[in-house]
Amino acid sequence: MFDYRRTHTCGALTKEAIGKKVTLSGWVHRRRDHGGLIFIDLRDRFGLTQLVFDPAKVAKAMFENASRLRSEWVISIKGSVIPRAEGMTNPKLSTGDIEIQVEELSILSPAKTPPFSICDEETDVNEELRLKYRYLDIRRGDVAEKLVLRHKTMLCTRNYMSNQGFVEISTPILAKSTPEGARDYLVPSRVYPGNFYALPQSPQIFKQLLMVSGMDRYFQIAQCFRDEDLRADRQPEFTQIDLEMSFGTPEDLMHLLEGLVSTIFKECNGVTVSQPFRKMHYRDCLEMYGTDRPDLRFGMPLIRIDDIASRSTFSIFLEQLSAGGIIKAICVKGGADISRKEIDGYTQFVGKFGLNGLAWMKKQDGELTSNIVKFFTPELQAELNEKLNIENGDLIFIAASSEDRVNQAMDHLRRRIAKDRQLIDPNALEFLWVTDFPLLRWNPDENRLESEHHPFTSPNFEDLDLLEKEPLKVRALAYDLVLNGYEIGGGSQRIHQSDLQEKIFKALKLTPADIQEKFGFFVEALQYGTPPHLGFAFGLDRIVMILSKTENIRDVIAFPKTQKASDLMMQCPSKVHPKQLDELKLKAEATEISWI
Amino acid sequence: MFDYRRTHTCGALTKEAIGKKVTLSGWVHRRRDHGGLIFIDLRDRFGLTQLVFDPAKVAKAMFENASRLRSEWVISIKGSVIPRAEGMTNPKLSTGDIEIQVEELSILSPAKTPPFSICDEETDVNEELRLKYRYLDIRRGDVAEKLVLRHKTMLCTRNYMSNQGFVEISTPILAKSTPEGARDYLVPSRVYPGNFYALPQSPQIFKQLLMVSGMDRYFQIAQCFRDEDLRADRQPEFTQIDLEMSFGTPEDLMHLLEGLVSTIFKECNGVTVSQPFRKMHYRDCLEMYGTDRPDLRFGMPLIRIDDIASRSTFSIFLEQLSAGGIIKAICVKGGADISRKEIDGYTQFVGKFGLNGLAWMKKQDGELTSNIVKFFTPELQAELNEKLNIENGDLIFIAASSEDRVNQAMDHLRRRIAKDRQLIDPNALEFLWVTDFPLLRWNPDENRLESEHHPFTSPNFEDLDLLEKEPLKVRALAYDLVLNGYEIGGGSQRIHQSDLQEKIFKALKLTPADIQEKFGFFVEALQYGTPPHLGFAFGLDRIVMILSKTENIRDVIAFPKTQKASDLMMQCPSKVHPKQLDELKLKAEATEISWI
Repeated sequence: MFDYRRTHTCGALTKEAIGKKVTLSGWVHRRRDHGGLIFIDLRDRFGLTQLVFDPAKVAKAMFENASRLRSEWVISIKGSVIPRAEGMTNPKLSTGDIEIQVEELSILSPAKTPPFSICDEETDVNEELRLKYRYLDIRRGDVAEKLVLRHKTMLCTRNYMSNQGFVEISTPILAKSTPEGARDYLVPSRVYPGNFYALPQSPQIFKQLLMVSGMDRYFQIAQCFRDEDLRADRQPEFTQIDLEMSFGTPEDLMHLLEGLVSTIFKECNGVTVSQPFRKMHYRDCLEMYGTDRPDLRFGMPLIRIDDIASRSTFSIFLEQLSAGGIIKAICVKGGADISRKEIDGYTQFVGKFGLNGLAWMKKQDGELTSNIVKFFTPELQAELNEKLNIENGDLIFIAASSEDRVNQAMDHLRRRIAKDRQLIDPNALEFLWVTDFPLLRWNPDENRLESEHHPFTSPNFEDLDLLEKEPLKVRALAYDLVLNGYEIGGGSQRIHQSDLQEKIFKALKLTPADIQEKFGFFVEALQYGTPPHLGFAFGLDRIVMILSKTENIRDVIAFPKTQKASDLMMQCPSKVHPKQLDELKLKAEATEISWI
Repeated sequence: MFDYRRTHTCGALTKEAIGKKVTLSGWVHRRRDHGGLIFIDLRDRFGLTQLVFDPAKVAKAMFENASRLRSEWVISIKGSVIPRAEGMTNPKLSTGDIEIQVEELSILSPAKTPPFSICDEETDVNEELRLKYRYLDIRRGDVAEKLVLRHKTMLCTRNYMSNQGFVEISTPILAKSTPEGARDYLVPSRVYPGNFYALPQSPQIFKQLLMVSGMDRYFQIAQCFRDEDLRADRQPEFTQIDLEMSFGTPEDLMHLLEGLVSTIFKECNGVTVSQPFRKMHYRDCLEMYGTDRPDLRFGMPLIRIDDIASRSTFSIFLEQLSAGGIIKAICVKGGADISRKEIDGYTQFVGKFGLNGLAWMKKQDGELTSNIVKFFTPELQAELNEKLNIENGDLIFIAASSEDRVNQAMDHLRRRIAKDRQLIDPNALEFLWVTDFPLLRWNPDENRLESEHHPFTSPNFEDLDLLEKEPLKVRALAYDLVLNGYEIGGGSQRIHQSDLQEKIFKALKLTPADIQEKFGFFVEALQYGTPPHLGFAFGLDRIVMILSKTENIRDVIAFPKTQKASDLMMQCPSKVHPKQLDELKLKAEATEISWI
């Protein structure tokens, strides 16, 4: 039998190997017949190596075998490393200086013609077809690279966390359905028909119990599940870097996590991240950027001009202000070149977020111009110039509406303009801690307060006396980490004092029966000696997306699901045998699914 | 606020620290009042440190606070490290030379009285109560240690595999139900009512697809699920170290895995394992030990004495032989001291495995004695003596029945005697590769051949011409790894040649329609260029059990389930809200579960 064990991968051979006898195995990437010779680009996930079959040097039968080779056949060869002919080297390939003079060939496995080309770098194949043949899609180089990057990120995380004294502990996948939060995936029990497990939305309860149990520092790269209607960047199963520690402070944890993130970017992307990361209060974030996850790779902050606008005579601004609205502006440096048509486009764009219009002014030849400038006195214009730092050639956009709408619309507008005007350095990494989130929010439907995160999040101790009088002003000891405008993780200090926990339950108007129903055994567990503890969770998929510079979450998952939570390759979910449902004492009528 | 950040853990302080000011935080393990002083053993998962509250040295309020302390309260203290008084040191504790003169105390969290004692080393609390309060059970020292050992095993595995060029790739938990194998856990789909996902029983299909995709070397520490009625050492969710590689041979893989296992035992237990491991053919294993997972920590092989017995006049032996049965004996060294009553016990024991009796002989004063010796001529007795190497003071047991029964019963008897006579070195590690498993077995119910493992397992190429004539003699390229009598893992070379695959399907009498129904897209995938590949899977839980010298699988899992697959702590599975079932278009009537 042909010994197909490789001496080298297809990315390994360089000039230094010339003269060596080698064995290579891999896939036929491309075949070219030229000047009586057969050239094969042999591929594996490490690279490409050029093989040459020369009829003058090999037996006729072997040359005939070589001429049968087609794309994606798996072969193994033995041969000698020789230099490529003058002018035939390929500096784009690590193996571009050499080729292999083939001496022996074995066809390990022929291949059917694939449904799309593997060797074209650009492909316009639709994603559904690629997902159906995911095992072929992964051959296309960049997918495999992203999976390797994901592996490196996970391994690097584990070694870092372990070196910091954290213990990785696996928590159950067959867990309990909880009445709060997103929709659970359920798993029917056969032993107790009509009862169900739920796949965990996060290991939150388990990790806090591990602190109660004295495990001190826990982490896990955890699979989590949510049965939600999926947005483009969501998957029904996703992965968290989940952690919890006892007897620490938020500052300790932030320092540790900055180290983790910096290590990941260094080891996986070779990038040095500067520490410490910037910090900003939630309120200031909303004020300056209209969002709690601002992209700091570019400027263009939102600037509040209520005061100036209130002294203008522009009725729309005055009406919005008197209705309790606000007015914010951004200054687009050099934006005076934006055409009326483009301005109309932006106006339409902010309309999607509920803004009825978008005011603007340009500064040209030292003068502000636009159809609303006349409502501002020269003194007010001067104030605007100064507040927004408007220079010749700039343009400002102004939005007036309720605070929520202005913030949402101006956040999107700011990011849209940055993209359109290419203000974003694709290599920049701008980290930001957002802190001091509110602890509670008002639920107008149920006419009561509810927790922003969960009722075990600790309030800021400075705000404890606000809890009864002005509960919405109480800040939480909660913190998010934002990178380039994405929330990549979040966490909080948890409540470990039972008297404080009771105050929070009281503020939430939860009765003992409510507490038992919603949090059951967990509240009991916290009464057996709970250490101060705090934790965090990163979205692993998101981090790998940023590391690999893709905006498609499916690129960083080996076997992803569609937005309908289906797997096109395996064709699942699927019907099951009636016997399976009988055993579970379940009745269900199957919907037909049409697969591509 | 009291700064509870620790300078040291409770296991860290030794004589070298005397004179230092420290902050410790942890749980009150024990309190003793003695000579007007209060002594507290403060505990965390790293150890115990003795605290002293001296009323002569601290404020009265603080001393009163200290006298309120009860077991399992969480406290933080500041104080000075001082030497223990003469004669009061405790050499069993790493911190046994010192104690802390407490200067400041903060009670972080009082605790209810736990339902069982945390500080008693031996506990006779029943396991159900401990599982209900698992977060307290973990505080009891040895559970936490086992979880740390599990963490080390996983991390060590990941680094080793990564260094060997393997990429960890997560495969889906929401997968497809397959008609073969054990019972699946199902997950109803909301988007496609009446259709289901299944939790994977193993990543087998995914890992082979990753080889088709060119990922070259894959591994994963994978959660797997089986809805089976549980034996004592099974859990509905369990963990595999799962791996697959391309272009290698079984010898390459075994060498690599020996390195992995040796590294784990070295790093986690400090034990040096000698390599290479022994190898034995499946048939030889059955012959010598009656099982394919022999415990080689002791001798006492089974020895076939059909030939000698056939020449005796003992009618039971002759009858069994003429009915196609076999006769095997074991020699218990020094076993002549086994009493008649004990022999009766062993006879009863083998009765559980279907043996109607157990013959025996003792050698005393150079003579074989027993009630069946008379059926053996002196010449036959001499042959027995030689074949079984019977020495003065030994005892032999002889079993006669069908091959299966003899093997099963004598395997159990051999292990039972080794245990009773303490022949097993508890520190011994005896690894064994069992190879050359049969490829196929006969299914008498369906009157056809079926695969021992799965139909993608490669036959031994030397046996290919037996496939049609004597298919049951065809050996598979499959191998198990056995440690101390436990199968800790298994794997095989897979078929990558479509013509060979067709031959196997033919031998299994599978029609194209059967193939499509049972293996669907997977068979198609194998036609797009499949490299030679092979793989393996270890049972992680089993390895950690052996590392931590426990026979209870629940000891090595943070939140285990009972043998009824329920979680006593969370009380799940559980009823869910009718709305949840409506959304899934499922009908189910809930069984009541009574929880402890």
